[in-house]
Parts: sequence; C-alpha cells; structure tokens
Amino acid sequence: MKQNRLERVIRGMEAMELEQIIVSAPASVFYLTGTWVRPGERMLALYVHKSGEARLFANRLFALAGNVDAPLSEFDDTEDPIALLSQSVRPGTLGIDKSWPSHFTLRLMEARKDVRCVVGSAPVDDARMCKDEEEIALMRESSLKNDQAIVTAMGAIRAGAKESDVGAAYDRAAAALGATGNSFPSLICFGANCAEPHHSTDDTLLSAGDSVILDVGLCWRRYCSDMTRTVFYGAPTDEQKRVFDLVCKANAAGIAAVRPGVPLKDIDGAARKVIEDAGYGQYFIHRTGHGIGLEGHEPPDVSRTDARVAQVGMVFSVEPGIYLPGRFGVREEDLVLVTEDGAEVLNKLPHELRVIPAE
Amino acid sequence: MKQNRLERVIRGMEAMELEQIIVSAPASVFYLTGTWVRPGERMLALYVHKSGEARLFANRLFALAGNVDAPLSEFDDTEDPIALLSQSVRPGTLGIDKSWPSHFTLRLMEARKDVRCVVGSAPVDDARMCKDEEEIALMRESSLKNDQAIVTAMGAIRAGAKESDVGAAYDRAAAALGATGNSFPSLICFGANCAEPHHSTDDTLLSAGDSVILDVGLCWRRYCSDMTRTVFYGAPTDEQKRVFDLVCKANAAGIAAVRPGVPLKDIDGAARKVIEDAGYGQYFIHRTGHGIGLEGHEPPDVSRTDARVAQVGMVFSVEPGIYLPGRFGVREEDLVLVTEDGAEVLNKLPHELRVIPAE
Repeated sequence: MKQNRLERVIRGMEAMELEQIIVSAPASVFYLTGTWVRPGERMLALYVHKSGEARLFANRLFALAGNVDAPLSEFDDTEDPIALLSQSVRPGTLGIDKSWPSHFTLRLMEARKDVRCVVGSAPVDDARMCKDEEEIALMRESSLKNDQAIVTAMGAIRAGAKESDVGAAYDRAAAALGATGNSFPSLICFGANCAEPHHSTDDTLLSAGDSVILDVGLCWRRYCSDMTRTVFYGAPTDEQKRVFDLVCKANAAGIAAVRPGVPLKDIDGAARKVIEDAGYGQYFIHRTGHGIGLEGHEPPDVSRTDARVAQVGMVFSVEPGIYLPGRFGVREEDLVLVTEDGAEVLNKLPHELRVIPAE
Repeated sequence: MKQNRLERVIRGMEAMELEQIIVSAPASVFYLTGTWVRPGERMLALYVHKSGEARLFANRLFALAGNVDAPLSEFDDTEDPIALLSQSVRPGTLGIDKSWPSHFTLRLMEARKDVRCVVGSAPVDDARMCKDEEEIALMRESSLKNDQAIVTAMGAIRAGAKESDVGAAYDRAAAALGATGNSFPSLICFGANCAEPHHSTDDTLLSAGDSVILDVGLCWRRYCSDMTRTVFYGAPTDEQKRVFDLVCKANAAGIAAVRPGVPLKDIDGAARKVIEDAGYGQYFIHRTGHGIGLEGHEPPDVSRTDARVAQVGMVFSVEPGIYLPGRFGVREEDLVLVTEDGAEVLNKLPHELRVIPAE
C-alpha cells in the first residue's frame, strides 16, 4: 500500500466519521496500491478500515498474488465474491465507492442487514483531488506531450480531410510520444459540428469557413491530459474572430481567478461573466471545467454548483466555449494546477488565432 | 421505443413480479430506444413501468430532444437528476440495473424511503440474451469481419514483431473493414505471456518457439465479435502440438453440446472434460464462455455456476484454454448461436495448426 496516500484517505474517513469504506474504481485502487486492474464485470474491492487495515478482493484471473502491494483475497468465477468480502466488513456504516456497480452494493446490503451503506468515495476522491509531487510531475509531462500532439494533428487539417483523419493524426502523434492511448476519444469537430459539444468525431469533410475544434488528451504513465484549441480553415468572419477572442478572454479570466481558497464557482463565474457580458451567455452551455488526473473526469467540478474551494495540488480544466447552433463553435481549454500563490497552466501552447489557408 | 423489445422486457418484469425498473447500461438503453448515450459520470436512466410507461432521463448536454424515440426528461449540470427521476418512481419495489453506479442507487434510496431497491437487470438482460433477427444478422456480420481481420493480423507475426505490432495490424484491418473500434482491447500474447490469460498486449518481442494467442474482437454496427486463435512461431514441440490438439477438441466438444434446453454448465462440462481427462484440468482456469452482443461480455456465463439452459437466440463464446505457467498457453474461441436444432458457429475460420516459420 502507498502509505502516505492511505493515511490521507484515513484522515478523510475520520473527518467524515466513516469507519470503513470500499474502494472500487480502478484508478482509486491504483492510487492506493500501484496496481491497475480492469475488472470488467467481475468484482473488485479494496476494503479500508480506519485502523489502517486494507485488503484487496480480486478475481484470481487477474493474477495479482505476488504482484500487488496489498493484502489480497482472491476468488474465482465459481465463488461468491460478496460472501468473501462480507467476512471483512464490520457492522455499522460502510462507505461505498460512488461508481461500484449497484448489484454489488445491493447484494452486500442483502447479505449484511447490520451494515448501512452510504456513498463513501469522498475520502479517496478528496485525496486524489490534490495531487502529490509524483503526480504533479506526471501531469506536467502528460500535458506537454498533449501540446506537441495537438500541433501535429493540426497539420492534418487540409483540403479533403475528414474529422476522423485529424483524429487519427492525433492518435499517431500521441503514440509516437509514448502515450498509452487517449484519455478520452478525440473530439474533432468541423463547422456546425463544433456547436454540438458532445458531437462524436465522424467522417464530416472539411469546408472553407469551418471552425475546427480539437479537444484531445492522452495518457502518460496513467495520467491524463485534456486540452482544446479552435482553429479556422479559411479566413474567419468578423463574428468568428469576435467569438474566438471572447472565448480566449474567458479562458484567461477563469485562469486568472484561480488561487487557493477561491470557490470553484467563482472561477466558473469569472470565465462565464466575460461571455455573458458580451451577450453570448446562453451559448455557453456547460460547466467551465472538471478535475482530471488518473481519470479524464474527476472531482472537482468548476461549476456554479460545486461548493468546494480551490486547494493547492488540484488540477482541473478551464474550458469556456460558445456554440452557435447550426453555424460554428469555439472552445479553448487548458489544464491548470493550483499552486501556493495562484495557478500553473500545464498547457504551454498559446491561445492565438490560427488560420489554415483554404485551398 | 422499440415496442417488441419493450414488451419482452415487461413480460420479464411480470414473471419476476417487478412493477418498475431503472435501465441504465448504455447498451440496454440502446436496445430499447435505438440511441446510444455515453453518460460518463452523468446520470442516465430509462424508467420502465409494467404499464408500458417508459421515460428516459438524460443530461441536456447529450442533445437527445428530437433525437431519441422515447419520452424524455432532460436536466443540466446544475440540477439534481435524482430529484427529477424520483418524481416518476412509484412506492414499492424498484429493480435497479446491475451496473448503475452505486451513488445513484444510494441517493435514490435516501430520497425515497418508500422505495425498496433490488437488483433488477434481469428483465432487460434476459431479453438481450436471446437475440432477435435483426441482431443475429449483425452478429453474423461482425464475426465474419473478425475472421478476416484476425487473418490479416496473423500476417504481422514475423521476426522482430512485438505483441503491440500484431495488435496494431488487427486494429488497422478491423478499421478497413468498417468496424467502429474493438469490442475489447486486443489481447496478443507471445510465449509465456500466453499462460497469463489476462496479460495486456505489450512490447514483448517474438521469439522462436513461441505460442502466439490472438484474442480479438470488433464492433460492427454496435454488435461485438470475439474470437481466439493460437498459432506457433517456429515448429511447435510435441507438447505444444498435444496441448493445441486438446484445446481444439475441447472447443469442438463444447460446441457439439450446444442445443436448446441443455444446461450451460453441461456445455462448460463437455469442453472441460476433454481437458480434465487428459490431465490438464488444473490448467484450464476460467469459465468456458460468456454471452456477447451489444457488449463484449453479457449474460449468460458458460460456467459450472450458471444455472440457466441454452435458449434459441443466445450467442456465447466457447473458449477453452490450457495455460502452462512460465511456458506457453493455447486458447481457441468461437462464438456460437443457439438454433432450433443445435448451434451455428459464427466464426468460419477453421481450427488448424498454423505454424509461421521462424527466421
């Protein structure tokens, strides 16, 4: 077990008066044990008691014996893992990892009427939210590689290109930099597709006058990057330039608001105000950002509904956007690390108007 | 809503005395509505009442209004989706999709003390387990494409190749056939890595004398394929040939046992007996197979613990293996469809001893 991290988790459990929790997210299990297991539909559970006791329950198929730095209880496909886990659980309240598939929770509740299950990811999520030195170093490297890969991908924006071609160029660039895959499926949008924030990259062809959104991230030694740049294919219209400029200012305003102790909703508010004041508020239809680390989306949210404040070591995105349905869209996104005296922007690629000449 | 499928689900609910269920797995929502949503950490829930009422709850970000064939309730990131969903839920027992993240279930239970949550995926899972005509056609196509792509990938097994090179060759071949990605990360194993059934494809170099396992699958119009072939790089030893022959016989014996009404554990038993009788029983360390369809792993299990019987329309894998730790391993896998009078093997690539000359 990574003792420093386990101790932080236990302090969090104490603060929340949770005596015992089940950690199940593969990223959380990795955070505490150094081993990443992809359980598929099989049960994976790291039981943690406030006494410091920890025990990993995993299917024998994952061959963890001797390969994981944690006390281990294995089972196979013919055994009931809930019955096994149940032997370690004490009566009373039990915190359950937020993403543990419900059937495990419901079956455990059925087997143990003396246990009250509550949502209990916060001790681990809160610890993971503030990155330690080792994690910060990897987050920096991951974003620097992302800066490089996105520039290569921009080179694929040319006459005849499809969104998927640009996505493939990014994937090749990321792989050449040693990344182990994407932190999320690359989102490349041309023209009106840019105005649909959760469009999936498809075979749409590039047209002169298109805004092009590249929202991409890679995994570097398990740590995720995530950035967005918007470029134009052919000379942008005055409105496109105005919207682009506004989004860059909103991105900068959000980042400028970041320092320890500032409510996350105020960071959201700082970015949003720039866009609202210019009359585009209704076209900025999502939160300003999200935490990131071992997973592409982690707590906290940079949104008006997240009641937390920025803390040293948090890494989150600042990604305002303006989406004009049926026409075009712009998003500019960086990852920022909260430091003692403000913020360190992990992406070094500047926000500048990039115009690729249309042929 | 796909009415025929909804009616099958409701009949299943009636048989289980479930008046209402929450369907959340993206594949299950797609099965019933025809729309695939990737909710990420956001709530996705399709509420189904035995009266035939169905309502989809989804984040506005997914832009489903006008794009989904189901009554829709949308929310945004500032709203509590559980409060919204709670308005539709009746007092009494509520079946919960097995994979719904636990925090949704626990929060719903907290909000609605008059609701008793139980595991309730079976009505949808059981319906999905027996494929309809439209699904069977797509499953056949998916496996035929997989047969083609694996042969192309075999062409990359040559001096200097890494496991990841063979994986990349498969991915390119699948993409060229129109697949939209892998149904699971390709598992390519060289030599001793073959004996670790959940090894991840890495940069291990090919060596003369290696067994090579290719366990691959693709997605074709949402439907998954999954097959395994084992080939040898350089002349196999007598033991390798014996083990290969045994695994092929086990695969054939498993498939020969498939017909409607046969307990799945007997299909597992038929494959397993071949291996046990030859004294290798302890080296066949996993179930014989798993269901497959919109997801790579679905009910049923072809294992000694699955109490179900084969039914017309089920599609599952038959994939016995022998794994000799530190040395080599062999697995041979096909997908089979249960038909009125037996089984249709969806993979057409024969099981034969393939030896790639070592240079």
